[in-house]
Amino acid sequence: MSTCPIDTRVIRPIRFVAGQCQMLDQRLLPTEEVWHSYKTYEEIADAIRTMVVRGAPAIGVAAAIGVWFGVRDLETQSSQEFYTQLEKICEVLAATRPTAVNLFWALERMKRFAHANLDRSVLELKIGLEYEALAITQEDEMINQTMGRHGEPLIPDGARVLTHCNAGAMATAAYGTALGVIRAAVAAGKKVAVIADETRPFLQGARLTAWELQKENIPVTLICDNMAGFLMSRGEIDCVIVGADRIAANGDVANKIGTYTVAVLAKVHKIPFYVAAPVSTIDLSLADGSLIPIEERDARELTHIKDVQLAPEGIQVRNPAFDITPHDLISAIITEYGVAEGDFSTRLPQLVHQS
Amino acid sequence: MSTCPIDTRVIRPIRFVAGQCQMLDQRLLPTEEVWHSYKTYEEIADAIRTMVVRGAPAIGVAAAIGVWFGVRDLETQSSQEFYTQLEKICEVLAATRPTAVNLFWALERMKRFAHANLDRSVLELKIGLEYEALAITQEDEMINQTMGRHGEPLIPDGARVLTHCNAGAMATAAYGTALGVIRAAVAAGKKVAVIADETRPFLQGARLTAWELQKENIPVTLICDNMAGFLMSRGEIDCVIVGADRIAANGDVANKIGTYTVAVLAKVHKIPFYVAAPVSTIDLSLADGSLIPIEERDARELTHIKDVQLAPEGIQVRNPAFDITPHDLISAIITEYGVAEGDFSTRLPQLVHQS
Repeated sequence: MSTCPIDTRVIRPIRFVAGQCQMLDQRLLPTEEVWHSYKTYEEIADAIRTMVVRGAPAIGVAAAIGVWFGVRDLETQSSQEFYTQLEKICEVLAATRPTAVNLFWALERMKRFAHANLDRSVLELKIGLEYEALAITQEDEMINQTMGRHGEPLIPDGARVLTHCNAGAMATAAYGTALGVIRAAVAAGKKVAVIADETRPFLQGARLTAWELQKENIPVTLICDNMAGFLMSRGEIDCVIVGADRIAANGDVANKIGTYTVAVLAKVHKIPFYVAAPVSTIDLSLADGSLIPIEERDARELTHIKDVQLAPEGIQVRNPAFDITPHDLISAIITEYGVAEGDFSTRLPQLVHQS
Repeated sequence: MSTCPIDTRVIRPIRFVAGQCQMLDQRLLPTEEVWHSYKTYEEIADAIRTMVVRGAPAIGVAAAIGVWFGVRDLETQSSQEFYTQLEKICEVLAATRPTAVNLFWALERMKRFAHANLDRSVLELKIGLEYEALAITQEDEMINQTMGRHGEPLIPDGARVLTHCNAGAMATAAYGTALGVIRAAVAAGKKVAVIADETRPFLQGARLTAWELQKENIPVTLICDNMAGFLMSRGEIDCVIVGADRIAANGDVANKIGTYTVAVLAKVHKIPFYVAAPVSTIDLSLADGSLIPIEERDARELTHIKDVQLAPEGIQVRNPAFDITPHDLISAIITEYGVAEGDFSTRLPQLVHQS
């Protein structure tokens, strides 16, 4: 099997070691850095479902690797059976998380590759799909660096930048989307201070954003989700940048629960609100955000942290994992093909068709 | 010593047992119901500082009891020395928490009583201050019931009411301010469903509001602070009601961090936003909210829950415990003397002077 060249100084949630896919367990950070090894597509599906790996682009990468591992283990020599099994593997992977479109995008891309090579042998298809999965992984890192270069002019020198959840290296193959833009601003010599919402209930801000920025000595201050409004009212936040799990054709953005609230606050305080995401996040098939499915997750994410019980036994809970930020609250959408501002309905299809 | 008559079915954070003041440790709820006993004013000051007891009216009650216990233990027979020591006791209690004005109000009331009785013996002053502290405790419960009756017409039958933090029985002597209004609406035969923000970092919503409403079978659903915007955008919240730690003369309200964000969201979604607080919370000496001191608390409240570490070692943290909601985001302020709507600058002094 192939091995991705790894610069060990670069923060990555997924790596390839000794013929296996390894993922850094994001549920255990920042106190434990535990890598799990995965050999089968079912194991990878489970890692996505249970949030060992999370973040829309990283989910796409993991799904592509899942397809590669799935077909690699097929024993059939029949092309017809191969395509039938490929479909089943993709169905299992597609059923893991409903909101991030990058998951479906990666599965489609793997299937498209297979269907574009109908004349090839099963062995050739397996090799091809391995290369395609590795290409998706490596491209994701390059995409983020390009996105960073497009986005960094929006970040002023000296800016105090609020971010929500983790749209960083840990949400992608490497470098990050929103945090990629911040990394690019820092690389361009700007002083940037990040304010990280802790992002309940899964605490991606406290556990992942704080951890990865601290590792790279980018100044970061942790706050609770309910403190952003207070800091904005005191003039202590200059702009907001977040990632996205799915972007509808009109520019409405599905992202981690709480993003909408931050966007409303930014609008009221006249603070720019930016979204950074690869074009694979844009879903032109959906006219607006109301059509994006919102995952509701288990009550235990709210009622417990590890074994500590936070709420009374048997309490009723709502736990939507995402919300929709309407396009009119968004100052710009930063992609690897450029920055969309103003009329998203016109600009987003242009960006997608460039890809 | 006197004993407050106790109806054990009523939820109270402070009780008097066998000559001691007992407080239910609010840091351990909902999993443990532990009552601590306090014999001295220094112990009571420590209980306020470390948030064994919290909530503006309850802090006022605890401070009054602190003064009573402080003077009770004085050995002097000299009136002059008594007043000097009373001043010192009040200083220690005043230094525990800076934002809730009820603390200072209760201390002032105790001092005013003492100074109105300059001709009395030390023994008579001690007895008088004991009665004054018990009166403050009992009045607080009656105040909340009256406030509830004034406020409940604002809560429609079938309403889904969002609340933030705990402005319930646990924040007062009994019955609660914001939750008192909800209790009164339920008592009036209305169907009310409460949505409780968990209220990071101290989780008063998850631990206290959920717990006390569940105990009384009032329907309650727990959400993270960052989910209120999502529910409002889906039309799932009909009104908001919160308590207050201090209200400036113009109607600006200091309350638990995150209140401001909820008020902004309510305004944007055209949802009524109500504040329920006794007139002792109104501080006419402050023209507006910018003059209210905001307590910043320890970083550990964010970085740990019990012994579970949530964020990387050494991370920088902001932890403002309160924020200011400007009066123009507030639909009405409910007090025991009536409801203030419209021009708060005119109406609040009227309510205070009725008291």
